[in-house]
Amino acid sequence: MAEPLRIALAGLGTVGAGVIRLVEANGALIARRAGRAVEIVAVSARDRGRDRGVDLSRYQWEDDMAAMAARGDVDVVVELVGGSDGPALTLARNALKAGRSVVTANKAMIAHHGLELAALAEQSGAALKFEAAVAGGIPVIKGLSEGAAANSVDSIHGILNGTCNYILSTMEATGRDFGEVLKEAQQLGYAEADPAFDIEGTDAAHKLAILAAIAFGARIDFAAVRTEGITRIRAADIVQADALGYVIRLVGMAGAEAGPDGQARLFQRVQPRLVARSHPLAHVRGATNAVVVEGNFAGRLLFEGAGAGAGPTASAVVADIVDIARGNRTAPFSVRVSDLAEMAVAEAGHRQSRSYLRFMVTDRPGVLAEITAAMRDAGVSIESLIQQGRPEEGGEVLVALVTHEGPESAVAEALRLLEGSPSLTEAPLVMNLLGG
Amino acid sequence: MAEPLRIALAGLGTVGAGVIRLVEANGALIARRAGRAVEIVAVSARDRGRDRGVDLSRYQWEDDMAAMAARGDVDVVVELVGGSDGPALTLARNALKAGRSVVTANKAMIAHHGLELAALAEQSGAALKFEAAVAGGIPVIKGLSEGAAANSVDSIHGILNGTCNYILSTMEATGRDFGEVLKEAQQLGYAEADPAFDIEGTDAAHKLAILAAIAFGARIDFAAVRTEGITRIRAADIVQADALGYVIRLVGMAGAEAGPDGQARLFQRVQPRLVARSHPLAHVRGATNAVVVEGNFAGRLLFEGAGAGAGPTASAVVADIVDIARGNRTAPFSVRVSDLAEMAVAEAGHRQSRSYLRFMVTDRPGVLAEITAAMRDAGVSIESLIQQGRPEEGGEVLVALVTHEGPESAVAEALRLLEGSPSLTEAPLVMNLLGG
Repeated sequence: MAEPLRIALAGLGTVGAGVIRLVEANGALIARRAGRAVEIVAVSARDRGRDRGVDLSRYQWEDDMAAMAARGDVDVVVELVGGSDGPALTLARNALKAGRSVVTANKAMIAHHGLELAALAEQSGAALKFEAAVAGGIPVIKGLSEGAAANSVDSIHGILNGTCNYILSTMEATGRDFGEVLKEAQQLGYAEADPAFDIEGTDAAHKLAILAAIAFGARIDFAAVRTEGITRIRAADIVQADALGYVIRLVGMAGAEAGPDGQARLFQRVQPRLVARSHPLAHVRGATNAVVVEGNFAGRLLFEGAGAGAGPTASAVVADIVDIARGNRTAPFSVRVSDLAEMAVAEAGHRQSRSYLRFMVTDRPGVLAEITAAMRDAGVSIESLIQQGRPEEGGEVLVALVTHEGPESAVAEALRLLEGSPSLTEAPLVMNLLGG
Repeated sequence: MAEPLRIALAGLGTVGAGVIRLVEANGALIARRAGRAVEIVAVSARDRGRDRGVDLSRYQWEDDMAAMAARGDVDVVVELVGGSDGPALTLARNALKAGRSVVTANKAMIAHHGLELAALAEQSGAALKFEAAVAGGIPVIKGLSEGAAANSVDSIHGILNGTCNYILSTMEATGRDFGEVLKEAQQLGYAEADPAFDIEGTDAAHKLAILAAIAFGARIDFAAVRTEGITRIRAADIVQADALGYVIRLVGMAGAEAGPDGQARLFQRVQPRLVARSHPLAHVRGATNAVVVEGNFAGRLLFEGAGAGAGPTASAVVADIVDIARGNRTAPFSVRVSDLAEMAVAEAGHRQSRSYLRFMVTDRPGVLAEITAAMRDAGVSIESLIQQGRPEEGGEVLVALVTHEGPESAVAEALRLLEGSPSLTEAPLVMNLLGG
């Protein structure tokens, strides 16, 4: 058997400890599959004293995390520190420059600096791998960049944030409102004490930007992801969706479409959507993630599994290590960095969608006429309209409507016409429909 | 860019023509991803004259398929001839011996001769790849051998035959009986004129044996797959299953379990099962395939997509070609052939299951007492029992029961006690439950 592949592990949080446990539990199996042993030689973290439930005495402790990149006895640096910049980025940069391969679960760092790091890897011949950065334990980067490698990708869409999916599917199952379920999710450890990153869609947007770059051969463009979170969704929206045959999910979606100049433009959006019950994403409940890849030959592929957690994330980290040990070297973004296209941003207004619009209005005559007139004036065709019978607390009434398929710009225009109307007690909520 | 990867394509049926169409349509994209062009140089099939809807004039025609293995201008032989032995096997053997890589969609050949071919590939340093042999366009072999490489696999189970799934889910949707739906499936091209291979479970068993070898590091053992088909399932069974919260699917399942001597034994079974509606396989409808891999760290991973068809299968074939072009060389069965274990066959009798038992009985007094007495005497605990109110044609009555969890050997013993009973008008049907 070949020489062991030697690992330096930076970051010993939940995932770092999970990687140690995994390598200890499955080491013999991994050695057979990789054709060589995978050996953790050094570890590093901010706090040496913390009890992580794993025995660290057999690994060399490195006080200076940055020094791991320069160790002559290391082939792969596993970065599990987190944060888009700072020590994680310094470590990754230095390791790749020194010809050490880097495996990371850091979606923020890859979304912001993935191209720079991939270029460094190309220059030094090292590997850069980040399967664990997207959809936890699901091998979706592999599925996309290798499994679907023969396809021109038509679209990808996925449930990329387990916290949001837990909250939405729990709201659905219990009829409770967002705030209450969020609190419970925090108590259960499904949501952070500061949940903004998850519930406002940023985390899903990081992951979507990474997938979109791979799927469409585009330079990663996180800033261009239109991102909405789930904080404004009410229990009543879920009831309305249900009545229409839909569930609500936070969906990241990306596609390439021809712009007015004929050039392909990249569409990237994270948005809560009404997903038809017949669509595979509708069945995804709890903290599960799922990604649909539509290829021009493969058709629809679905990858589903645990989107987070120590075990699943460690599984993805070590899968990357096994790939490196085997000598498998798919480019981080499937093609060389210089082959990635600078794609212009698609204008959402051109897209044809069916939309769900929800208004909270004061309970007085003429409100419905005002809303429907705005729709008519903007050229939005209404498929169905529901006005909730009973006012909510404070005399508010919910009006929900679903449009026929039409340009999103028309819906935006209708909302512009309603802006500032004293009938509306909060800004309207718009969610596009998926499937059905 | 590196030299093109040169392909010889043997077999120009639906899938072969699909591969040509795919390489023509996506060639530039594939070259960027593979880091080199993929070039079909020679093609061969039995009938040169047949119109396949693709222009073959740009490829060299080889009359003697076997000669393709020896061509000096070929790097990869793509075998799409079919059949477990005969020309396909000769071609694969000779190509691998000559150091040419082989890509195949031939599940029967791999199920019967995969180890021999993998050993030849190891000896000559060539690649042997067969993603398209299992679950069509779904990259499940890659997902299992690479994506889940860090895991000890607890079990795999999947819907591996699109024809059966089409028939079962259509029976479910329409309430029609097996024979009628099969006929329709044949007219629509979802079932072969001679459907035995599919509906008796052999095709699924081939695929299961391949997946099991990879998942459990075992020498492939197709002969040990316990296989039952779907021909005996009646519309009434689907109605009963529905009332219990289940759907019926043909499920291939494999697991490793400790035998009485403490040694791991391999369990492989293709059987129609009652799948709980909450289980991800319950949502798989039509000709779709899906595979669940349960890993000890990743948890449950689901891979789903089109299980057959020219486009999806070509997608998997060309993904293998891209892997070869990139230099990615995972062993065909994930580990070296010499590392695969000769695993003894697990005895199903030891397994704990909940089972659905269906009896067709004559409509006369005492029948229920006879059946329930046999259950009692064999130690089978009954959870629920349904006797259909109205006799079917011929005075037959359906009696269905679901057992509590218990050893399968007890159910077998109960059926043995009922053997030869004049009350039973046909052999009882037993289906185990999955999920729920």
